Amino acid sequence: MATNVQLSEFLASAVEAAKKAGEVIQKGFYQTKNVEHKGQVDLVTETDKACEDLVFNHLKQYYPDHKFIGEETTAAFGATELTDDPTWIVDPLDGTTNFVHGFPFVCVSIGLTIGKVPTVGVVYNPIMNELFTGVRGQGAFLNGNPIQVSLKDKLVNCLLATETGTKRDIATVDATTNRINSLLFKVRSVRMSGSCAMNLCGIACGRLDLMYEIGYGGAWDVAAGIVIVEEAGGRVFDPSGKDYDITVTRIAASNPLIKNSFTEVFSQAE
Amino acid sequence: MATNVQLSEFLASAVEAAKKAGEVIQKGFYQTKNVEHKGQVDLVTETDKACEDLVFNHLKQYYPDHKFIGEETTAAFGATELTDDPTWIVDPLDGTTNFVHGFPFVCVSIGLTIGKVPTVGVVYNPIMNELFTGVRGQGAFLNGNPIQVSLKDKLVNCLLATETGTKRDIATVDATTNRINSLLFKVRSVRMSGSCAMNLCGIACGRLDLMYEIGYGGAWDVAAGIVIVEEAGGRVFDPSGKDYDITVTRIAASNPLIKNSFTEVFSQAE
Repeated sequence: MATNVQLSEFLASAVEAAKKAGEVIQKGFYQTKNVEHKGQVDLVTETDKACEDLVFNHLKQYYPDHKFIGEETTAAFGATELTDDPTWIVDPLDGTTNFVHGFPFVCVSIGLTIGKVPTVGVVYNPIMNELFTGVRGQGAFLNGNPIQVSLKDKLVNCLLATETGTKRDIATVDATTNRINSLLFKVRSVRMSGSCAMNLCGIACGRLDLMYEIGYGGAWDVAAGIVIVEEAGGRVFDPSGKDYDITVTRIAASNPLIKNSFTEVFSQAE
Repeated sequence: MATNVQLSEFLASAVEAAKKAGEVIQKGFYQTKNVEHKGQVDLVTETDKACEDLVFNHLKQYYPDHKFIGEETTAAFGATELTDDPTWIVDPLDGTTNFVHGFPFVCVSIGLTIGKVPTVGVVYNPIMNELFTGVRGQGAFLNGNPIQVSLKDKLVNCLLATETGTKRDIATVDATTNRINSLLFKVRSVRMSGSCAMNLCGIACGRLDLMYEIGYGGAWDVAAGIVIVEEAGGRVFDPSGKDYDITVTRIAASNPLIKNSFTEVFSQAE
């Protein structure tokens, strides 16, 4: 079990790493529109890879015994099993499509699990200059200011975030739009930002009331956001209402007051 | 016909007015989550009203003979007919739901029509510090830097923005999600930001490739954005492909290369 002092050190290292990656993301963000398509693909790959290397190398110098799981490394070398060891789970660039288009919801997401429990989380959006942080038992913060989830307790007052995912087979697309159709009769409105990590942080700071995403990339999209939501007083769960399971790519989050109403209408919408 | 010098003066006055309104929006934006529901409604109404008064009073001191159409004034006193006279068309707070929730896509939108043609446009988002400006014949700018629409010519590479509107009858909701369903098979992904004016500006600066909105509030949502899109090299049209008609609340925008492909798939989706 890590001490509070250790946890604060982990957080400080993760923030340093996020800031380094943020500089690379910011530089690429303003370049993407000026390069041709093939070059654009290269720029994304290079930025993704460079940010993951930066984050891993920065953290490995302090914590050589920790385990590391990253989107890029997993894509190249296959999945790494999540163990009880302290494990850094990193998405070097969440919101890749936004990055390519210059839409401002992009971020680096750095989570640390200990005993498989998300324990430290840093999500940094260098374009909007938003640094979200959370440490198990120590609260959640946006640019150093404490944040908390919204107090909405009626669906009709809730702003819901979701995404359309990347799969375009008929069954997936129909399921996606049918869910949105059902939910539109219940909630105030829907937002799609294109970043799962930013949507989790949106729940944490109360600018969003409900979020769900089905079929996202992997644990690196959510590991940091989970700590930040929970430390802001929120709940993370499977959209059906069951416990969140890190091995499947289904996630939902909300404040505790609205969770049951949400999972009930979500289950009817499935 | 206004001279270029006059147009530049109109723009400068509109920017001053937008900055004044932006201060009020920014102040309210960080307050909304700390007030109770009834107080929240009051805060929106007060901010909307205060911003419209600020903008109108600022412009009236310079242009006492111009006409003025504003969302708030229209709501209170009914519609004002658009004439050939220079007419300022103002949405004091676009993205009201975002404002209430603290979601950062909020702006003040100030457009000037001359001979019914949108001629000067200012859209200012004080939260993201983005000032979009356009003057007929003089280009479009983001924070003083020239902007242009994207060069995407294939739908599959396009980022599409739309909204779910505010009507929740079955026919409207079904039409909304059926369109999204059809379009999802054609485009890269969908974004919903909650601000029509910001979506138009997203087209203008190339961070979005396609946008459409059906059933928005009124001309004040689009009057400024239209100039900004067109001066950035884009096209504004009815989603069906017909000419844009300011008297109906249907709008679409894109770069010129992708317009026909878009209206074709949109017409199939209706």
